[in-house]
Amino acid sequence: MASSIIVLCIIALAIAYVFYNYFRIKKMGEGTAEMVEMSAIIRSGASTFMKTEYKTIVVVVIGVALIFSLFVEATSGITFIIGALMSSCVCVLGMRSATYANVRTSNKARETLSIGETVKVALCGGSISGLAVQAFGMLGLVLILMVSPVNDETITRTGTGLLAKLSCTPVIMHVTTYSLGCSLVAMFNRVAGGNYTKAADISSDILAKIRHDMPEDDSRVPNVVADFIGDNVNDIAGNCSDLLESFVATISACIVIAVTLLQKGDFSKQMFDAASVFPIVFAGCGLLSCVLGLAYAAFHKASDNPSRELNNSTYICAGLTMVLGFFACLIFFRGIECAQFAWGWISPWIASVLGIGSGVAIGAITEYYTSTDYKPTQKLAEICTEGEAFVVTKGDAIGSRSVLFPVFIIALALFISGKLCGNYGIAVAALGMLSFVGCTVSIDAFGPIADNAGGLAESCHLPEDVRKITDKLDAVGNTTAAIGKGFAIGSAAFATVSLIVAYVGAYSAGEPVLNFASFVVVAGGIVGGALVEYFSAMLTDNTIESAKIMADVGDKELAKPGVLEGTVHPNYNMCIELAAKQALKSMVVPSVLALIIPIIGGLVFGVEFVGGLLVGATIVAIPRAIFMGNSGGAFDNAKKYIESGNIPGHGKGSPAHKASVTGDTIGDTRKDVVGVALDIFIKTMSTVANTLASVFRTITLIK
Amino acid sequence: MASSIIVLCIIALAIAYVFYNYFRIKKMGEGTAEMVEMSAIIRSGASTFMKTEYKTIVVVVIGVALIFSLFVEATSGITFIIGALMSSCVCVLGMRSATYANVRTSNKARETLSIGETVKVALCGGSISGLAVQAFGMLGLVLILMVSPVNDETITRTGTGLLAKLSCTPVIMHVTTYSLGCSLVAMFNRVAGGNYTKAADISSDILAKIRHDMPEDDSRVPNVVADFIGDNVNDIAGNCSDLLESFVATISACIVIAVTLLQKGDFSKQMFDAASVFPIVFAGCGLLSCVLGLAYAAFHKASDNPSRELNNSTYICAGLTMVLGFFACLIFFRGIECAQFAWGWISPWIASVLGIGSGVAIGAITEYYTSTDYKPTQKLAEICTEGEAFVVTKGDAIGSRSVLFPVFIIALALFISGKLCGNYGIAVAALGMLSFVGCTVSIDAFGPIADNAGGLAESCHLPEDVRKITDKLDAVGNTTAAIGKGFAIGSAAFATVSLIVAYVGAYSAGEPVLNFASFVVVAGGIVGGALVEYFSAMLTDNTIESAKIMADVGDKELAKPGVLEGTVHPNYNMCIELAAKQALKSMVVPSVLALIIPIIGGLVFGVEFVGGLLVGATIVAIPRAIFMGNSGGAFDNAKKYIESGNIPGHGKGSPAHKASVTGDTIGDTRKDVVGVALDIFIKTMSTVANTLASVFRTITLIK
Repeated sequence: MASSIIVLCIIALAIAYVFYNYFRIKKMGEGTAEMVEMSAIIRSGASTFMKTEYKTIVVVVIGVALIFSLFVEATSGITFIIGALMSSCVCVLGMRSATYANVRTSNKARETLSIGETVKVALCGGSISGLAVQAFGMLGLVLILMVSPVNDETITRTGTGLLAKLSCTPVIMHVTTYSLGCSLVAMFNRVAGGNYTKAADISSDILAKIRHDMPEDDSRVPNVVADFIGDNVNDIAGNCSDLLESFVATISACIVIAVTLLQKGDFSKQMFDAASVFPIVFAGCGLLSCVLGLAYAAFHKASDNPSRELNNSTYICAGLTMVLGFFACLIFFRGIECAQFAWGWISPWIASVLGIGSGVAIGAITEYYTSTDYKPTQKLAEICTEGEAFVVTKGDAIGSRSVLFPVFIIALALFISGKLCGNYGIAVAALGMLSFVGCTVSIDAFGPIADNAGGLAESCHLPEDVRKITDKLDAVGNTTAAIGKGFAIGSAAFATVSLIVAYVGAYSAGEPVLNFASFVVVAGGIVGGALVEYFSAMLTDNTIESAKIMADVGDKELAKPGVLEGTVHPNYNMCIELAAKQALKSMVVPSVLALIIPIIGGLVFGVEFVGGLLVGATIVAIPRAIFMGNSGGAFDNAKKYIESGNIPGHGKGSPAHKASVTGDTIGDTRKDVVGVALDIFIKTMSTVANTLASVFRTITLIK
Repeated sequence: MASSIIVLCIIALAIAYVFYNYFRIKKMGEGTAEMVEMSAIIRSGASTFMKTEYKTIVVVVIGVALIFSLFVEATSGITFIIGALMSSCVCVLGMRSATYANVRTSNKARETLSIGETVKVALCGGSISGLAVQAFGMLGLVLILMVSPVNDETITRTGTGLLAKLSCTPVIMHVTTYSLGCSLVAMFNRVAGGNYTKAADISSDILAKIRHDMPEDDSRVPNVVADFIGDNVNDIAGNCSDLLESFVATISACIVIAVTLLQKGDFSKQMFDAASVFPIVFAGCGLLSCVLGLAYAAFHKASDNPSRELNNSTYICAGLTMVLGFFACLIFFRGIECAQFAWGWISPWIASVLGIGSGVAIGAITEYYTSTDYKPTQKLAEICTEGEAFVVTKGDAIGSRSVLFPVFIIALALFISGKLCGNYGIAVAALGMLSFVGCTVSIDAFGPIADNAGGLAESCHLPEDVRKITDKLDAVGNTTAAIGKGFAIGSAAFATVSLIVAYVGAYSAGEPVLNFASFVVVAGGIVGGALVEYFSAMLTDNTIESAKIMADVGDKELAKPGVLEGTVHPNYNMCIELAAKQALKSMVVPSVLALIIPIIGGLVFGVEFVGGLLVGATIVAIPRAIFMGNSGGAFDNAKKYIESGNIPGHGKGSPAHKASVTGDTIGDTRKDVVGVALDIFIKTMSTVANTLASVFRTITLIK
């Protein structure tokens, strides 16, 4: 209880700092009348989209909550709703703050002409999202754990649904359904956000660059504003809810694994008491570190190198988390005998440090494969002179090649953590990677804010020297976005593996076993892999369908007299509404599939089949997601590399440039629609399975 | 012993029929002087390539054989060499017969102007490869089993290498090393063949269609002949050795699993005696069915519908195999008590029928996704009007979408077979699918022969009505090639799963368990998946590298005076040699990787890590290979659909057509280099693991 109160204080501090920043940003000036107008359109478009989206989400959430309360466990519907609520709060707060911060970032550049000052505004905007993710995610969970604590006594109690009388453990249910609530919202946000932003982006690229030869982000193209909004929808709301989900899922996996280990006799009562509270405290250490690190970034004198500023923030937050985490391990585990910990109390600390290190390393590898500073992207740009087919094939090769090292790192971290602390160690490594999520999301959120700021500078015709600053921030933002994706996938891999381990532990009577030499599990495994491909295909088809529709509508607008000349504003709102309509249309089926597949699999083929399914989906989704993110990032930056005139004789408008634009357009769907949705797909399936493990154990159609 | 002799008689019959066909084809007329000249170039180019390739293969094979005899088991080097030898015989025979049959097919069309007669020649040529695959694959294995029989007495004997004194079971070693010999040759052939054919194909497409606006297969383009040769190298030699390997691996997996079941007490001695001989007999039933079915196809009066002729052959062979297999099950298993067989002696027959049915069904699904007769490819062709980015994205979506049903079918067949006869049933289902491999390879081989025949008709300027016939055959051949790829992948999936089950059984002390809730196995699993991506990247990079070099060299040839005008022949031989040089350069590293990865994994991280590795690689490779094959096939046929004028206003030379050519070029690498190599990659790794399971169990660096 004492530790819960300390953690609550840290959460309160973080939330206070979030709101302090929120109002600080809001107070800043917005700039010229044109900027005020444009940013108001973006803000209202984003809000409108969220409102419409939530009309559907609310219905689904209430429906699922009812099913839980009626058929699974009476009070779990409430915890499910709390999870969905926390995630939604963060999305709304993040998106509002980003739509305030974007215009203020370009205005700061306009007023001060200082890179350092401008970076601070964008990062301050980003830190609102980042800290909110970690603080709100923890808030809900800590409150639930205070009301319904997980201890050796409560885990023996059983409960049932209001209608169905299948017995399950309510305190575990509360934790897993909370996580599932976060998961569902994330799923909707990612799928809808991806469709929204890329349909808008691809269609405006087609109109500007291919059909009418205009600059990117030209305000005459009606789809451009929808594109600006899309950045906020997907890269802010989608990303926040995605990482919040990973973070919460990891903590809940830690707790479920600790329970399993107690039940199987591997953990003593004393050990269990420590191990079930430790994850919350360690996450609290991370949150405190992030508040301190981001506050330092906000208030020290900034240099003119945005990359360095952002990297420093990451290092400070990660380093502080390691230090505070060390003391947490010392306090919690010293003096406790446990055969599972090979090196005593320091074992979990090493596991957590491996997790933190993996996060940082995966970021660096992603940067190598996607930044114009390194060979892969430069080579991709050079091959653009050979035409489209070569660009795509080379980009595919880069994407596939980039998979190996991140996966090696994840595997090595899993292997060592497992050797040092058994299955609990895997979950702690995952927790380590996600413990400074507040910082990583802040830096992720920097990307779309800087991107919007650059777009506003372009479409509001700000002077060249202002645009130079915003362009620089935008370029850095592209790289941080790619790194953020790498981190999201890496952390999802860790989170899912811990969820699978927790799931197997929850249904196994003796030692947790998921036997891939059994035909049921193998069948599940290959089906899981195929489902990932099918899910990708669905999202891809929906996106190009929407983009095609939007490009045709945008073309009609451009044909109206005066629009191409720039004397008449095109009808932005129609495009915004169209993007929202398309996104919502394509949101429901994929999201509900992720919920339903493990349920059907479990009820028909049993608990082991679902285990295989999760493993198969995870093993395919990890490399696929990395492939999508990195090939997309490399395509994007290869185009930028050519546009900056790095390939003599093949500048803007050349066939090589057109080929690179083709690559970029192909990459758009990959990195911002499919790649980012895959991680949430596997997490949602795993969370569903975890929540319903006890049901599958009881009901199986084909024994 | 009696059954071995019966099977040997069937093999002798098949081989006699193969040679009868070989000399029958050879005796046919070759046509005009130009055709004789061109086909001689192709034949000698193909032979030269094989000779050069085998200089490397022989060295590697002897090296590996030595390692086996010295360090693993004294006589296993010999069986390894026999495996490599059998596979090589089939490749040489298949390629020689195909290079005879191609020109005779176009000549038959020229002389008779009858589709039915022409189809017969091409299919007769194909049946030489097909029956040789099955007959020679069985021949080596049956001889080895006669000299070194696997029975309850011999499996208790142990042996060691000449130098190292690790104990293992020689009779098992003989079977697995024989399979590994086939595997290694297949690996080399696939990787080198893929690089050879696609570097030539892509470079001649670039030269003909993009740089110089000439028709496909124009003999002025120097790379065209290398492209013709490539069809024989990859689609005949590569495909034959690939499927021979699947076939042999499946039989050996059956035997190894039977041994494991005996050792664990699940099989009685009587049951084991039946179960260890049954696979050979069942394969013999399949071989006899294929001889009868193909003889019927060769000698009955042919209709003018080539598709129907080919399908009928498949149905006859598959149907006969089912009937003969029924009696085999009856004779072998009736009256034997076995708890593993849920429905008594008919259980294995049902499993085998499921395997056969899956093979046919996967073929049909592949046809749906890749043929111009159906929606997916038609839609892909329609979207070509929107430009390259849309084509590629849509093609990706089709490829990913096409994965689901084949995998469902495989999973269902595995699930039911497993329910009916346990792990032995999985291997029997795999055996069922591969039992009529003689027929499927014959029909696969029809494709490249028809393709070459069409190319020869074009480059030797045969009259329009002859080319109409060869074009029709070529179109059918494209579809059979796609179906063949689907079948190769499906069978590889079955074979690999049985190999993994056999592997786990071989190293487990008690029940076979490969626990994915253990961190070692999970780490192996995700690394296995990433390796598949990396392997794909290597092959892709090598191919575009070679194609770039070949296109530049071809361009220089075309610039020589008289070449573009058609008055001077370009230097074909230089291009042929270049293609061979590039292919050989890029052959060794990927092939050796597939050998070495499981060995390093096993020696460093242990036997369970390798189990995870194999599962991970298989789960990723199955959907990836299907994706590659089907997206490539759809791209290819979408281009053909546009070229046939099916999209009004967007014919040959239009931007839509250019976009479809881009898609086709991207698809070339996917379907003919990466997709077909992935299945052999997972099979080779699994066979290596199976062979060395006992070594890994003894030596593990990190316990």
